[in-house]
Amino acid sequence: MKLQKSAVVMMSDFGIDSGLVACMHGMCKMVDQSLETYDITHLIPAFDIQAASYCLQYTVPYWPVGTVFVSVVDPGVGTSRRASVAKLKNGSYVVTPDNGTLSYLHTMIGVVEIREIDEEVNRYQETKNVHTFHGRDLFAYCAAKLAAGVITYEEVGKKYPIEEMVLHEIKCAEVSEKYVKAVIQSYDPFGSAELSVLNSEFQKTGFAIGDKLKIKITTEDTVVFEEMVSYEKSFGYVAKGENVIFQDLDSYVTIACNECMFAKKYHLDPEKTYTVEIFEA
Amino acid sequence: MKLQKSAVVMMSDFGIDSGLVACMHGMCKMVDQSLETYDITHLIPAFDIQAASYCLQYTVPYWPVGTVFVSVVDPGVGTSRRASVAKLKNGSYVVTPDNGTLSYLHTMIGVVEIREIDEEVNRYQETKNVHTFHGRDLFAYCAAKLAAGVITYEEVGKKYPIEEMVLHEIKCAEVSEKYVKAVIQSYDPFGSAELSVLNSEFQKTGFAIGDKLKIKITTEDTVVFEEMVSYEKSFGYVAKGENVIFQDLDSYVTIACNECMFAKKYHLDPEKTYTVEIFEA
Amino acid sequence: MKLQKSAVVMMSDFGIDSGLVACMHGMCKMVDQSLETYDITHLIPAFDIQAASYCLQYTVPYWPVGTVFVSVVDPGVGTSRRASVAKLKNGSYVVTPDNGTLSYLHTMIGVVEIREIDEEVNRYQETKNVHTFHGRDLFAYCAAKLAAGVITYEEVGKKYPIEEMVLHEIKCAEVSEKYVKAVIQSYDPFGSAELSVLNSEFQKTGFAIGDKLKIKITTEDTVVFEEMVSYEKSFGYVAKGENVIFQDLDSYVTIACNECMFAKKYHLDPEKTYTVEIFEA
Repeated sequence: MKLQKSAVVMMSDFGIDSGLVACMHGMCKMVDQSLETYDITHLIPAFDIQAASYCLQYTVPYWPVGTVFVSVVDPGVGTSRRASVAKLKNGSYVVTPDNGTLSYLHTMIGVVEIREIDEEVNRYQETKNVHTFHGRDLFAYCAAKLAAGVITYEEVGKKYPIEEMVLHEIKCAEVSEKYVKAVIQSYDPFGSAELSVLNSEFQKTGFAIGDKLKIKITTEDTVVFEEMVSYEKSFGYVAKGENVIFQDLDSYVTIACNECMFAKKYHLDPEKTYTVEIFEA
Repeated sequence: MKLQKSAVVMMSDFGIDSGLVACMHGMCKMVDQSLETYDITHLIPAFDIQAASYCLQYTVPYWPVGTVFVSVVDPGVGTSRRASVAKLKNGSYVVTPDNGTLSYLHTMIGVVEIREIDEEVNRYQETKNVHTFHGRDLFAYCAAKLAAGVITYEEVGKKYPIEEMVLHEIKCAEVSEKYVKAVIQSYDPFGSAELSVLNSEFQKTGFAIGDKLKIKITTEDTVVFEEMVSYEKSFGYVAKGENVIFQDLDSYVTIACNECMFAKKYHLDPEKTYTVEIFEA
Repeated sequence: MKLQKSAVVMMSDFGIDSGLVACMHGMCKMVDQSLETYDITHLIPAFDIQAASYCLQYTVPYWPVGTVFVSVVDPGVGTSRRASVAKLKNGSYVVTPDNGTLSYLHTMIGVVEIREIDEEVNRYQETKNVHTFHGRDLFAYCAAKLAAGVITYEEVGKKYPIEEMVLHEIKCAEVSEKYVKAVIQSYDPFGSAELSVLNSEFQKTGFAIGDKLKIKITTEDTVVFEEMVSYEKSFGYVAKGENVIFQDLDSYVTIACNECMFAKKYHLDPEKTYTVEIFEA
């Protein structure tokens, strides 16, 4: 019986108005025409490794075990940063420059092994004079060989210590019964404040849907917000213009204002660090 | 013999710069890795149910019978609107919030049965604390189960009367021999006026390619256009700057000006309702 | 044994916010549900045949032999330009209006045969009253029949002389030992100047990675640039703000400034023609 091969799933900051992404797909099909290739997005802001890392953490868990992800946000293309393949605890792989892209995944799923791609064997040889498109010639090509079973994970290249992996700081949270202390780690397009507390951690507080929580937001010793907020399933459960806290789809707890911009309403400044404390009412 | 499974074909207003759409694709592959997934577009204007409904009517007929479409333009996510699967007369399915998305398809192809998704069995259980991403956890998941044959259509959930389906008003037209009375229902990106008369209805007028038609456009009792217009195969059959009427690709008859903006040329105001009458010359 | 069918790979200027592209994919699946369909990009600037032609030349070589490409940038849709299928020297096919789209591919890979699509048999018949969407009804439909093996290449339609193919001028270069005379043919999004000398031709000069080359750029008898420039593998091999020449991913040699805009730095005007001479230091 023919086993279904793992898909190759790609992400980059290459944009979508050129043929670059298609060259990566095509390269995979040249390795093995029966491979399936998909995209996450290619509109990661240019060189924004943090954004790439964040996007992977909420996408990777929703693909089958064994999927081979390719993430190319690579300010150092053609220079000395390592080109690597990480094996995740859940059995999937990420092919990427080792430049911080793995930070969130390592915290949330765990990298169990990492190998540097052996360019002698796992780089496309016919373009060896071109050094500006590792996305095609190195990352997609090596990912396809791995997904197709042309090489085993061990044949990617030499293993190196996980401690050498480049990791950026991941904001985390202090969670106990009926208490959370976190920071605002980002804002979504609707101006909602995404906290540095995972949905899964938040459940340990014992707060229940429908509870009114006391939320205090502070920056540089100034309290900018101190109100009671409903903990609901979704923003749609409160009236328009009302604040709400809920477990969001990108794995983290979020504070929003239904049909208005929470960040704008409270003049939150993306350049500043905000501490968020959540208490029982 | 292994039968080809139906594809899952997705549309939303989620945008394409995040991992949201990829989570929906991945969810389908988690249900059955052999499923093929495709996109219509994810750039439907936010919350624009009418645009989603219109886009479906000219896309659905060009996919094989049995295709499972997922359309998620869902201002009411996480609240009480029904999550449904409609079966179309042509044998394809549409998985969608029942909020008006089916309006055009019901008029043009026909919904023959509609069922509310049983969330107890056809919702992804591992994210049951997240209520903000029904696109992934409910619609894509249920669509994949249906396309993969994990469930039959009957197992989607309880049938409800088609009369309860939420439908928005579809503008139509009065068509007789050598006469049409319609309205302008939208404008395309080139400023062409899309009339509320289907290509298929227009053929009943008996007008023939090459005919000169008298077209009169009125708003609030004021005639804003009254000219002879060529009925041609396409805009390219008249000189630049000349007006033309033709059967367009989105199923409806269109009045355009070759290489200029018809709507702009005649100062048509998108906020106003225009009646269009077409007579024999 | 079931042979893998060739993929259908599509490009156009249709944009990605409507259902047009999805109609083309669906049309292929209607012809043969087992066909795989992919995209290059659908954001080619409207009617920009030159851009379509350029994009194809650096994308086509990275897909398997036998791939069926569809390129629809077609200002003349519905009029008398030929709708054709070109067979390339490498065994792949391009289905396209014969309007100059094949110019770069013919120069770089070679068109070995070209046939005009017989619309009587290779056009979708159910939409024969619609003449504004050849992308769906003619090009995608015919490409799918060819990729699926429903028709042979000979059955596409009548062969016509390659000399009749519409070709736009391709800028080229004079290359000898340690000397190149070329022009700037375009600028990439980072303001780098793409020369009209192919990577493969450049290698004939005998210049070696690490060499300092003397580069002189002239327009209308005025020298606008005359400096020593490092020939490196990639822009990342020189310091920020330093100029560099390298073989680029889109098949052509490029002059760039690392992390700054070369074209802006030297006030290059996209409307002007620049001659570039490269000498040994």
